[in-house]
Amino acid sequence: MTDLAGVVPPVATPFTPDGDVDTASLERLCAFLLEAGVHGLFAGGSTGEIAMLTDLQRDSVVRTVVGVAAGQVPVIAGVVDTGTARVIDHARRAEALGADAVVATAPFYVQTHPDEVTAHFRLVHDAVGVPVIAYDIPGAVHSRLPETSVAELAGSRVIAALKDSSGDLAAFRRVLRLTAGTGLRVFTGSELFSDVALALGAHGAVPGLGNVDPHGYVRLTAAALGDEREVAFAEQERLAELFEIVAVADRSRVGATAAALGAFKTALHLRGVIDHPATAAPFSPLDAGEVARVRDLLIKAGLEVVR
Amino acid sequence: MTDLAGVVPPVATPFTPDGDVDTASLERLCAFLLEAGVHGLFAGGSTGEIAMLTDLQRDSVVRTVVGVAAGQVPVIAGVVDTGTARVIDHARRAEALGADAVVATAPFYVQTHPDEVTAHFRLVHDAVGVPVIAYDIPGAVHSRLPETSVAELAGSRVIAALKDSSGDLAAFRRVLRLTAGTGLRVFTGSELFSDVALALGAHGAVPGLGNVDPHGYVRLTAAALGDEREVAFAEQERLAELFEIVAVADRSRVGATAAALGAFKTALHLRGVIDHPATAAPFSPLDAGEVARVRDLLIKAGLEVVR
Amino acid sequence: MTDLAGVVPPVATPFTPDGDVDTASLERLCAFLLEAGVHGLFAGGSTGEIAMLTDLQRDSVVRTVVGVAAGQVPVIAGVVDTGTARVIDHARRAEALGADAVVATAPFYVQTHPDEVTAHFRLVHDAVGVPVIAYDIPGAVHSRLPETSVAELAGSRVIAALKDSSGDLAAFRRVLRLTAGTGLRVFTGSELFSDVALALGAHGAVPGLGNVDPHGYVRLTAAALGDEREVAFAEQERLAELFEIVAVADRSRVGATAAALGAFKTALHLRGVIDHPATAAPFSPLDAGEVARVRDLLIKAGLEVVR
Amino acid sequence: MTDLAGVVPPVATPFTPDGDVDTASLERLCAFLLEAGVHGLFAGGSTGEIAMLTDLQRDSVVRTVVGVAAGQVPVIAGVVDTGTARVIDHARRAEALGADAVVATAPFYVQTHPDEVTAHFRLVHDAVGVPVIAYDIPGAVHSRLPETSVAELAGSRVIAALKDSSGDLAAFRRVLRLTAGTGLRVFTGSELFSDVALALGAHGAVPGLGNVDPHGYVRLTAAALGDEREVAFAEQERLAELFEIVAVADRSRVGATAAALGAFKTALHLRGVIDHPATAAPFSPLDAGEVARVRDLLIKAGLEVVR
Repeated sequence: MTDLAGVVPPVATPFTPDGDVDTASLERLCAFLLEAGVHGLFAGGSTGEIAMLTDLQRDSVVRTVVGVAAGQVPVIAGVVDTGTARVIDHARRAEALGADAVVATAPFYVQTHPDEVTAHFRLVHDAVGVPVIAYDIPGAVHSRLPETSVAELAGSRVIAALKDSSGDLAAFRRVLRLTAGTGLRVFTGSELFSDVALALGAHGAVPGLGNVDPHGYVRLTAAALGDEREVAFAEQERLAELFEIVAVADRSRVGATAAALGAFKTALHLRGVIDHPATAAPFSPLDAGEVARVRDLLIKAGLEVVR
Repeated sequence: MTDLAGVVPPVATPFTPDGDVDTASLERLCAFLLEAGVHGLFAGGSTGEIAMLTDLQRDSVVRTVVGVAAGQVPVIAGVVDTGTARVIDHARRAEALGADAVVATAPFYVQTHPDEVTAHFRLVHDAVGVPVIAYDIPGAVHSRLPETSVAELAGSRVIAALKDSSGDLAAFRRVLRLTAGTGLRVFTGSELFSDVALALGAHGAVPGLGNVDPHGYVRLTAAALGDEREVAFAEQERLAELFEIVAVADRSRVGATAAALGAFKTALHLRGVIDHPATAAPFSPLDAGEVARVRDLLIKAGLEVVR
Repeated sequence: MTDLAGVVPPVATPFTPDGDVDTASLERLCAFLLEAGVHGLFAGGSTGEIAMLTDLQRDSVVRTVVGVAAGQVPVIAGVVDTGTARVIDHARRAEALGADAVVATAPFYVQTHPDEVTAHFRLVHDAVGVPVIAYDIPGAVHSRLPETSVAELAGSRVIAALKDSSGDLAAFRRVLRLTAGTGLRVFTGSELFSDVALALGAHGAVPGLGNVDPHGYVRLTAAALGDEREVAFAEQERLAELFEIVAVADRSRVGATAAALGAFKTALHLRGVIDHPATAAPFSPLDAGEVARVRDLLIKAGLEVVR
Repeated sequence: MTDLAGVVPPVATPFTPDGDVDTASLERLCAFLLEAGVHGLFAGGSTGEIAMLTDLQRDSVVRTVVGVAAGQVPVIAGVVDTGTARVIDHARRAEALGADAVVATAPFYVQTHPDEVTAHFRLVHDAVGVPVIAYDIPGAVHSRLPETSVAELAGSRVIAALKDSSGDLAAFRRVLRLTAGTGLRVFTGSELFSDVALALGAHGAVPGLGNVDPHGYVRLTAAALGDEREVAFAEQERLAELFEIVAVADRSRVGATAAALGAFKTALHLRGVIDHPATAAPFSPLDAGEVARVRDLLIKAGLEVVR
């Protein structure tokens, strides 16, 4: 973990039409990502529909990803849940299954004070033997991790890394400034300004779209970390146009999460990586016209489709 | 469930200082509530810190409450979780442990369309043999259950009851109007306008403060349902002043959830019902001055304290 | 102002198709309201599209309403603006034009501390010779007037009345409790629980829908203040069904404000009270099908239409 | 306007202790900014406390800034108000006073549909002879300008420029992509990622902190536009540390707007540019300790102070 860098896609969780984890497709997806050269795998992130998976399904996902990774790259496992004791239960299971680190948000459902949030991370840290990564995702948990809290947790080595999915570049830079010298690994969750984040000192990116086009993010990351700014910019622009797939679903019928994750899975299905585009119940699927628009955007981005 | 009415307190979950469920205190609390004449027990609601309890702790709570209730009153069990499959897992366990109904929110952490939310409740309903109660608590899940969705679910008998913790009386009345004749049992989660909600046709109240002063809510409910409006009003006003205990904690140190639940537990401890005022980790406790203010408010409300 | 009570409709501002204030229609509307027995007129509230009126139009509205009222009932004038000095300018003009009181919100666009908000009301109070009414409308100004601030302002006689459009009945009751004995006149802005608010001690209601059916709100208010609860309830339920007119506009085309105000004006046009249903630029109008649905709801509510 | 680029500070509006616009200080501030080499002056932005200024004060500010600019650089004037007709009134006055362009937000206080927002900008555009600049500032107006709306308005030449104060870099890039080739001039309102925005294709920056350290932003802008990325980055980092002055005020006493604007004015006072640090009523001032912390941060940033 102390030198984790580069692209760490939050691996999508393929389902069978019956709603089971489609382990074969998940293995194929992990292999696809590894072949593209990603630097780590994030099993059970928001893109992996962690919030929708039962505990058994979470275990199955971690076990499968760890199995395919086989030590080639680190596997970090999402242990997202509402409260500290629940997160610790997940974290211990993920550790036992071979995860190299666990990724936790602040408590949610409840309303917390920042000091309660830092106490939460300390308790998770103390409960497991693997590093803890803090996950700042206000769109899901409806609170922010204050930059000063991140700095405090980094300074005391409670967290080893941060995934910032806030979309707030100003705060992200402040975190980089406040944690300089602590050893904290800082990752952006933004699909859309990975190039900038890396140029500013981030260690890597955790882009959901990285499932669909891992080669693109690997090229982007290499260029950005190698100071080939124009290459990184061009790649980022191409990926931004591809990201429009999350906007094809008719929002009078489909919620925001299903629109995004349904588009990623539809793309993976069209590309031949997974067998079914299904998202978890109760998410609504994309309709035929929307699938066709995803296909168009894949082709426009220069990606091969097989369906 | 088809004739559940009256006070159904969301039972607090006492903890030992070590963070275990304090089963003996929980039994004492349930007995205290039953002696006061409550009409049902809600195990594992927001007040019961459901979001902070591990699955084993949730089971322990349901088992304990079912045991003390012993069929005298219905026990409804919170099965709060982020996604449908997770909620179903909880619901099946609660059913197996003897819960008479289960209480579920919309999915959260993810962002859903209302049609996905109604699909969610249908799936939960189809998965268990006990009635499903919908829990509208936007302060926790950050979405509303639209009144039309509630009406649709009530009309098709997917949900047997609603607990409305939205604080939005206009919407609450609209639900009452739209679900008239469907058999839906409608409960308010408001500590502060239970009298009004009952006068307008609600079947009962699920007040967190009902842990602290169940006798008061039993009197209030009897008066409101018996059309003794002035008695109900006076009782409600007294309870509103007692409710100020949730505002004693210094919010520069304690989050909103810990401020409220810490006050309830402190009050129960001062009243001699439970052995420890502890809330779940990582919540901050009330300090000595805050405890003293809770004691003052209890005495002012005419309640006996033993500590 | 010290004994203002009853129905004080926030008078709609009719426009000509060219966007001028339609003074003749406004006079007819005021006469219609007075004949129905309202107890005051609120010129330039949110329903009066105060935010969209130029200063000259605001003046024209206040002048017209004061003229028709002719001392029969008090006229209160909205002086809504972003900052204190701007509000004071409006308040002085309204006072000069004969308004009996002015209605101000907290500052908005900027982000304030509650102590800055109370200072704001003190400055407005000190600048004019007429009473100041505080307007709590978080849906428009995106901050709440804390109950303790209202109590402080009432206790020091800075504000003479409150219009509460928060929709938060629990907070409303707390205000009633905290301001008891101060002489503060408390009005609800809710169309949908005027009966309850009055039964709990509110002095009156300021319902936008009162433009469309002033007779209904006058009956409701008389019944509620006269303790004829069932009459008030039945009237309130009828008005709640009428209020569904605000939901007829297709929200994929029309914003929330235009949907509500367009419905009120369409209803007034259909009833023959005003000459044009136009709202201010840039609001989108209701289409023919939506107008037909408004007509249906008027008829269903037992109101006469002439178009 | 068609080639406006670089630093366009939103000029602070100095006040006398009596709350009048301190014209002499404003002249001195404009001269200070011009001497530093800024490329335009934005009179009456959010930093200029536009929301707190009376119409006469707004006029005085525009007149003063236009006078000092004397054609050396363009002057753009904020015409912020709640509704279209009000904005047009301001825009016509600003045009008459010599402003080279006007800056308008979407309507606020009311709730609009995006199509109503584009209609609003069309109406403002049609009403004046100077270019219209769209101001996206969701923290103040509580709605976003959708990227597609900006693109539509740019494509039809309704708006000549955009000031984006959303803090949302992903959306900002999308705007740049969608408006490429339309001639739209795109400015960031971010103090904290001006360097990035310029590197990505923005034409300039409108930083409130540019009042305090215009030389820094001029250097930053020159470096960023001149592709001296490391110089720009270093300057941006220094300015980010200086920006911590907005966080010195005790937020249990001072609101967010007063904390930021009070810090800017305190800094300008300490630097000897303006005579009084006063913000508009009812904002709370910084206390002595907070002023001392601002002074420390100025010195740390290498700026000269005279008080």
